[in-house]
Amino acid sequence: MQTLALDTYPIHIGPVAKSLTLTLEQQPFSQLFVLADENTREHCWPRIAPALEHYQPILIEIPSGETHKNLRTCEHIWGQLMAHKATRDALLLNLGGGVIGDMGGFAASTFKRGMRFLQIPTTLLSQVDASIGSKLGIDFMQVKNSIGLFRNPQAVLIDPAFLDTLSDRELRSGYAEVIKHSLIADLSQWESLQQITDLRSADWAGIIPASLSIKKQIVEADPFEKGLRKALNFGHTIGHAIEGHALETDTPLLHGEAIAIGMICEAFLSTQQQGLPEAQLRQITDYLTARYGKAALRPDDYPAYLQLMGNDKKNEGQAINFSLLPEAGKVVVNQTAGKSHITAALNFYNNL
Amino acid sequence: MQTLALDTYPIHIGPVAKSLTLTLEQQPFSQLFVLADENTREHCWPRIAPALEHYQPILIEIPSGETHKNLRTCEHIWGQLMAHKATRDALLLNLGGGVIGDMGGFAASTFKRGMRFLQIPTTLLSQVDASIGSKLGIDFMQVKNSIGLFRNPQAVLIDPAFLDTLSDRELRSGYAEVIKHSLIADLSQWESLQQITDLRSADWAGIIPASLSIKKQIVEADPFEKGLRKALNFGHTIGHAIEGHALETDTPLLHGEAIAIGMICEAFLSTQQQGLPEAQLRQITDYLTARYGKAALRPDDYPAYLQLMGNDKKNEGQAINFSLLPEAGKVVVNQTAGKSHITAALNFYNNL
Repeated sequence: MQTLALDTYPIHIGPVAKSLTLTLEQQPFSQLFVLADENTREHCWPRIAPALEHYQPILIEIPSGETHKNLRTCEHIWGQLMAHKATRDALLLNLGGGVIGDMGGFAASTFKRGMRFLQIPTTLLSQVDASIGSKLGIDFMQVKNSIGLFRNPQAVLIDPAFLDTLSDRELRSGYAEVIKHSLIADLSQWESLQQITDLRSADWAGIIPASLSIKKQIVEADPFEKGLRKALNFGHTIGHAIEGHALETDTPLLHGEAIAIGMICEAFLSTQQQGLPEAQLRQITDYLTARYGKAALRPDDYPAYLQLMGNDKKNEGQAINFSLLPEAGKVVVNQTAGKSHITAALNFYNNL
Repeated sequence: MQTLALDTYPIHIGPVAKSLTLTLEQQPFSQLFVLADENTREHCWPRIAPALEHYQPILIEIPSGETHKNLRTCEHIWGQLMAHKATRDALLLNLGGGVIGDMGGFAASTFKRGMRFLQIPTTLLSQVDASIGSKLGIDFMQVKNSIGLFRNPQAVLIDPAFLDTLSDRELRSGYAEVIKHSLIADLSQWESLQQITDLRSADWAGIIPASLSIKKQIVEADPFEKGLRKALNFGHTIGHAIEGHALETDTPLLHGEAIAIGMICEAFLSTQQQGLPEAQLRQITDYLTARYGKAALRPDDYPAYLQLMGNDKKNEGQAINFSLLPEAGKVVVNQTAGKSHITAALNFYNNL
């Protein structure tokens, strides 16, 4: 078991049965609750249940998917905690992807003004992204994570073995954040990632800690997203808008799929505004389209995208904020772009 | 203007036009929102509006009363902030009593993971109680403040002049917390309060800071309600249950009215379990019934009260937790009482 010690909590990487047993032994709690969705209940819960038997855990199940990351599902979680007379000194174990972790963490942090929680991220996305940063929340009025707060879990337990429970599409989605970490901070990591063509055979036990180290460095320098941490938003201003909009259609995108599109658009903006070399733009575009294919963005939807960007919580005042790349492996925050430049970036993607 | 400096934020006591102007000048914000209900919009808003003109504040109005302190109203507040494109660096000014402060503070703290807020408590209850402690939240499933969090406002501005906007009943309600502070911590304050028979002519500019000082001392010793702070729960275990239950009837009680009943019941428990002298029990009972009159508690409702106590967030594990008085001016926390003792306390009140 490998441990990445953040300032505020530990991330244990390795077999979950072992890390979970050790973590629970180290802290007292009155009752143990486990939050899962129908998928993690079926595929992940059996792998941790034996380690929990002794604690008589109460399982709370919610429907899977971003469309359920809302107040109604939160009310169900709070209602179940209430029904089982949970007190503030109970512990909630969030077993699942980003939706489970973000929403379960939010529900726990606001239940009786704060019960503790433990994250067991089971998707690549949540392992490399949500596991650092303490950002919790739910979607509201089509805007992702617009209701939420910052709060630390007791610990995060990452087991790369859970990745075999994911579909190819989910694995690829999480990989977008791995790519992003390399693009904003580590040219050599970006170069080595470009050698990976089969995600199933990738060395996750090596890739995950390396990717987490980048995020750790950025987040610890800016725990409340005052400035530097915006580096992590590369690809996310446009990506979030595309994701939010697609959520309302018959063909929703996974987070990483939308972020892959956002990274291409924002790499284009980077070339226009920050001098990202054309050759690097092409490398980014080639690698991402080879991994993620190409969605068709409808120009009729552009106004909706722009409107969603206007409500993006990363903005200051009314300007639309971007984090852009002056070159691969470097990032500048607090850049802005107007409607015409954003439209050009969406068209660039569409014309690939 | 008098200032009580807490560890984490200042409480300014004096004319609000002045304290508000000074406070706003000291901090940058992108947009100013004011949360009010129909009463404070009519009676309190005109007193602060001139000081805010320059900032073009956006008024968000919600219906008054504890019955609206719920998720639905929160959604309205979040929706209004979203509709006006509020960013995380906007400021929310909560103008009203405890409902406005608790819910507005909760809505702000969770909007885009935390915008700042300023409290202008306009009721005696919120001035002496909610203004210290950073406890924010809403009611859920009939349980008061069961969803919420701890978070500090930028400042609290108390103007005793607002008390003339209150009904006699509201003024009396807030006074229950003043009485509580004296009973748990300051015998001489309790003795001097017993001289007050006409609340309208009381010296609030003197009473409020004295009462706040008691709360300040207790809360700063225990900011997250781990132990000592439970001292403030005297009267609240039974009081909250009575309040929560009455909320569902045609004759809801104000918070302080319920707490006055709770203090009598828990003073009785104090005599039974902690040796509170009979004479002091009688003084408490006499003064409270003279001020608050006597409600009739229906024995048919006792099971509902007990059930609500079972879901009270101050409990640890499944025991029902009380803070009791060994004598007037002193308190012991983490006492427990069983169903039969609680029933005896409710009967004691009913038989007065």
